[in-house]
Amino acid sequence: INNRVQQVIINPNPDENVKLGFSKPRHIGVVFSGGPAPGGHNVIAGIFDEMKRFNSASKMFGFIKGPEGMLENRYIEITAGLVDTHRNMGGFNMIKTGRTKIDSGSKMELALTVCKGLKLDALVIIGGDDSNTNAAFLAQHFKSSGIKVIGIPKTIDGDIQVKTEDGKVLCATSFGFHSAARAFAQNIANLANDGSSDIKYWHVCKVMGRVASHLTLETALQTHVNIALIGEELADYVDQERMSKAREQGEQIDYNAYGMTLRHLSRMICDIIVRRAAFGKNYGLMIIPEGILEFINEIQLFITKLNKIIADYNRIHDLDFHRSFPTLNEKLDYLRRISQGMMDKGRFPIWNIRDDELFNQLPGFFREGLLVERDLHGNFQFSQVETEKIIMDMVKEYLDVLREQGRYKVGILRDDYVSLMDDAGMDPELFAPTLFKNPQDKYVLVKPDIISLKTLKLALVNAGMLDSEEETPQIFVNIFKKSQAEFKIQTHFYGYDGRGTDPTYFDCCYAYNLGLTAFHLIAGGATGQMAAIINLEKEIDQWQPAGIPIARLMHLEERKGRLELVMEKSIVDLESNAFKVFKAIREDWVAACACPDRFRNPGAIGFSKEMEEDRPLTLQLNALQFQE
Amino acid sequence: INNRVQQVIINPNPDENVKLGFSKPRHIGVVFSGGPAPGGHNVIAGIFDEMKRFNSASKMFGFIKGPEGMLENRYIEITAGLVDTHRNMGGFNMIKTGRTKIDSGSKMELALTVCKGLKLDALVIIGGDDSNTNAAFLAQHFKSSGIKVIGIPKTIDGDIQVKTEDGKVLCATSFGFHSAARAFAQNIANLANDGSSDIKYWHVCKVMGRVASHLTLETALQTHVNIALIGEELADYVDQERMSKAREQGEQIDYNAYGMTLRHLSRMICDIIVRRAAFGKNYGLMIIPEGILEFINEIQLFITKLNKIIADYNRIHDLDFHRSFPTLNEKLDYLRRISQGMMDKGRFPIWNIRDDELFNQLPGFFREGLLVERDLHGNFQFSQVETEKIIMDMVKEYLDVLREQGRYKVGILRDDYVSLMDDAGMDPELFAPTLFKNPQDKYVLVKPDIISLKTLKLALVNAGMLDSEEETPQIFVNIFKKSQAEFKIQTHFYGYDGRGTDPTYFDCCYAYNLGLTAFHLIAGGATGQMAAIINLEKEIDQWQPAGIPIARLMHLEERKGRLELVMEKSIVDLESNAFKVFKAIREDWVAACACPDRFRNPGAIGFSKEMEEDRPLTLQLNALQFQE
Repeated sequence: INNRVQQVIINPNPDENVKLGFSKPRHIGVVFSGGPAPGGHNVIAGIFDEMKRFNSASKMFGFIKGPEGMLENRYIEITAGLVDTHRNMGGFNMIKTGRTKIDSGSKMELALTVCKGLKLDALVIIGGDDSNTNAAFLAQHFKSSGIKVIGIPKTIDGDIQVKTEDGKVLCATSFGFHSAARAFAQNIANLANDGSSDIKYWHVCKVMGRVASHLTLETALQTHVNIALIGEELADYVDQERMSKAREQGEQIDYNAYGMTLRHLSRMICDIIVRRAAFGKNYGLMIIPEGILEFINEIQLFITKLNKIIADYNRIHDLDFHRSFPTLNEKLDYLRRISQGMMDKGRFPIWNIRDDELFNQLPGFFREGLLVERDLHGNFQFSQVETEKIIMDMVKEYLDVLREQGRYKVGILRDDYVSLMDDAGMDPELFAPTLFKNPQDKYVLVKPDIISLKTLKLALVNAGMLDSEEETPQIFVNIFKKSQAEFKIQTHFYGYDGRGTDPTYFDCCYAYNLGLTAFHLIAGGATGQMAAIINLEKEIDQWQPAGIPIARLMHLEERKGRLELVMEKSIVDLESNAFKVFKAIREDWVAACACPDRFRNPGAIGFSKEMEEDRPLTLQLNALQFQE
Repeated sequence: INNRVQQVIINPNPDENVKLGFSKPRHIGVVFSGGPAPGGHNVIAGIFDEMKRFNSASKMFGFIKGPEGMLENRYIEITAGLVDTHRNMGGFNMIKTGRTKIDSGSKMELALTVCKGLKLDALVIIGGDDSNTNAAFLAQHFKSSGIKVIGIPKTIDGDIQVKTEDGKVLCATSFGFHSAARAFAQNIANLANDGSSDIKYWHVCKVMGRVASHLTLETALQTHVNIALIGEELADYVDQERMSKAREQGEQIDYNAYGMTLRHLSRMICDIIVRRAAFGKNYGLMIIPEGILEFINEIQLFITKLNKIIADYNRIHDLDFHRSFPTLNEKLDYLRRISQGMMDKGRFPIWNIRDDELFNQLPGFFREGLLVERDLHGNFQFSQVETEKIIMDMVKEYLDVLREQGRYKVGILRDDYVSLMDDAGMDPELFAPTLFKNPQDKYVLVKPDIISLKTLKLALVNAGMLDSEEETPQIFVNIFKKSQAEFKIQTHFYGYDGRGTDPTYFDCCYAYNLGLTAFHLIAGGATGQMAAIINLEKEIDQWQPAGIPIARLMHLEERKGRLELVMEKSIVDLESNAFKVFKAIREDWVAACACPDRFRNPGAIGFSKEMEEDRPLTLQLNALQFQE
């Protein structure tokens, strides 16, 4: 099955053999695997319609609740009625989905028996990277039986992408990605509306995407939020400044030591918050990908190091680390002793003083999380952690410091200042240089050393504008209060709601065409291939169906401590146009200037041309007169 | 200003005075107050268009950032360009909003000065119940100046509703309610799609609505979720069974003692979860209103009693309760001593053993929350509490009990059982009576006493189907495992996203017409009135504009310990058709039977007639060829 990428070409004058290949009656099985993605029903519709077009006696069977249904012989026949009621609808309700893996020889054999029992000619697996990997193994296993296996690239995460070696795009994205991103974007655009009306919250939106930040990037491009964190960019970060300083001092360079830290990340976020506040915008929108922590070099290093320390302890002392140091404090103590005692043991001690310092800056519950016993595979359970809480707690803490230093302040529109002073009968020009560090700017900022009513009075007294015995006039108190920055956040998680949305028109068409393609691949005799559409960015009449041999997409990867052959997930390419455009334009979206915000509202997902015309049901029901 | 409800009637042949009243040049001020609601910009558009229609020299001013702008003389002139860029758009971005209250004589005087400075003829306040109350007081204060004040009923909560004494509806709902409910409903319908595809989660959705459950009711009617808790119904609940038992035993009846408890509520929820699971549906959707805890009799009683106990302690001992008992355990100890020591002091001791028992069943963090020091006004801070967590923690705990008792199990489709047994070469009919308590039903339930592999074996051995030395055949293990019910939840909060949505077509029209009405009220010389539209449930050509005197809607209410005259919030009327329909039909939505789920997807909010035709931006950008 290690064949070449094949393009599905509709031959206008097929010879008799090919005709026969298409028109012979078939039994095709189909199964969903993994989380739902909008458009799944259209894949089924595409296969079904094309199959019936060539031979109305052909039959289609859907395995129930995912691969489990294949192992347990649970299926329904998919009828035209079923297809029509689910066409263009979100979810995988028609036959449900599941996460059972067909990952052993005996399970594959069982699946084969079931497929043979149904006299299947082909099986179509609609799933993510793992499921397509699985499709390839099944294709291999089913080969001698003659049952073809075709995969369909499904995942809202958008991390199935395929290019040829010379860079030609074969599969630009999976179906479902667009719909999910648009659903997230709609909610986030709504938050932008709310946030820029109510002007007091930073809305922090976590969106699905554990391994790749495609959804964050797409959603950011759709909505122009002030901050969007792209995990891949953070992972790529090197602190050039610190590194060149170390180089100057003749130190040997450990590149890992200059990667992204939580501390640095929180500083970057604070910088934007403070800059916006200076222009009166003490509110904003931020998107973070669900898997952000896994991209932060520091966290990865901590995990690696702690694993090593604990393993070493257990080996050397023949004792269990967690038994020996049951409390967090005892564990931290032990770590501190390592950091001090091992300093002279080598150039790169596994736990140095800097590690210890940085580690102790993490929130307590997160340190605890990193230090508790791992799961059976020794993996840290990221999913247990409230990602956004960890990051935003550090942000809050640093904002407190900046506030103390007088650097986090809300800028006041100069015109407002002038009008307030005029109303109070004071001369704005006289007092401005005493109060503000930039008295002539459009937005004026109270001086950093004025951080309380006391320091406010001091500034006025020192400038000779107030007698030290006098009370500070109320107008100055009011102006000072306006400059005080509170930091309020609302956190949101968008995931399941976007996964379950009805598909966009694009995903409807894309998924349907993947179904058509799958049928053509089957009829053409292919197996172990993933259906794909080339030219997705063009008009539909220029779309080109294709089959991509899955085996060629695989690589070896460590999974739960074992090397396994799996399909590679595509992460955000920092050299891609999309990322570069985002990078080039994002400072504009920060809108830290005397300018309007750049938020964009992509609008609702809607397939129908009809207008939304309902009234509240409560209203209509309450207005009904019942005969009792 | 205590005038009568007046209907705005467009006189086809107005006399000269009336004509003059409409066509004289005017200055109208407008201000948003409180949280954004979709449609706000259309109110402004309605006033603006109508004002300009009668006299193009009239001017409109918008106060910036809510009532604060009125006090600080910050405003912009609202131009046709501004109106047109915001027409039909969500949010209150045009002039922002705020929560400053004009609640003292001096502030009212300041506001009057500002309004006079702008030569205003009228001020329109777009806000909730409090803001309309405020509008009435301002109208009174502004009366001698000739400046009219008109309120507009705005709130997504839908708790501004007005009827005449004989039941005629003057104001059926506020603008923004429909849009928010539809936005929530869309997300929740998406979750229904996802949930019924992935079939493993209960999605628990908290929606905004602290004082009334209108949004929960509307959203439930839009989506047909399995469970929707209506706070007003819970508040109304009386445990008839327990009460009549007490009556039989000749006890004096304290009605408060038989109201809703958290424990009872969690039992009710568990009942539905268990019943759905019995038909293979170990997943579902649930909506709870943000303010649910405030409707639970038990919680209200606890708060009242604890307040009294603490106040008594402080008074009697001349000590501070929180200083005397700094830890939670000490506080609980003190409570227990009261419950025991005071038993004989009266029929209704303030803290009896039952109180103590029930209190100790609450989650620790919630007990702590109830026992910490109150805010300055002695109020408990409900907003600090994760409502859904408290309720779902109790649900989880009780489900654990039910699982132990063999009462929470996943039903298995009998056909699946038969097919599994057939595949394993076993006779399904032979074993069914041993395994299942309802062996002939469409969904079979494993017997309650089979709760482990051990008890499974025992059942088979006791029935003579297995020798006690033999291993349990794998097929039975598999069937047993299918019957085991895990309970997984995902919680969601929908609020700010719905508040910021673009308005539905209904809210666009409603808000615009409120604006038109406001102008007519002003031109007609009214003040202290709230604009309203009668017949909202009918076609637009049957809508009737009206003005409702706000003073007549007010009543005395305790706010922060003081009695204040405020507009009454409308809560869900348990006698309303909407609630009765919901109540009559909700068991159908539970769908605890061999039937499909009843979820409904109301679709997206869309004003435009155009189709959604975009492709992912990342896709399009990546496909572009840049010249570098």
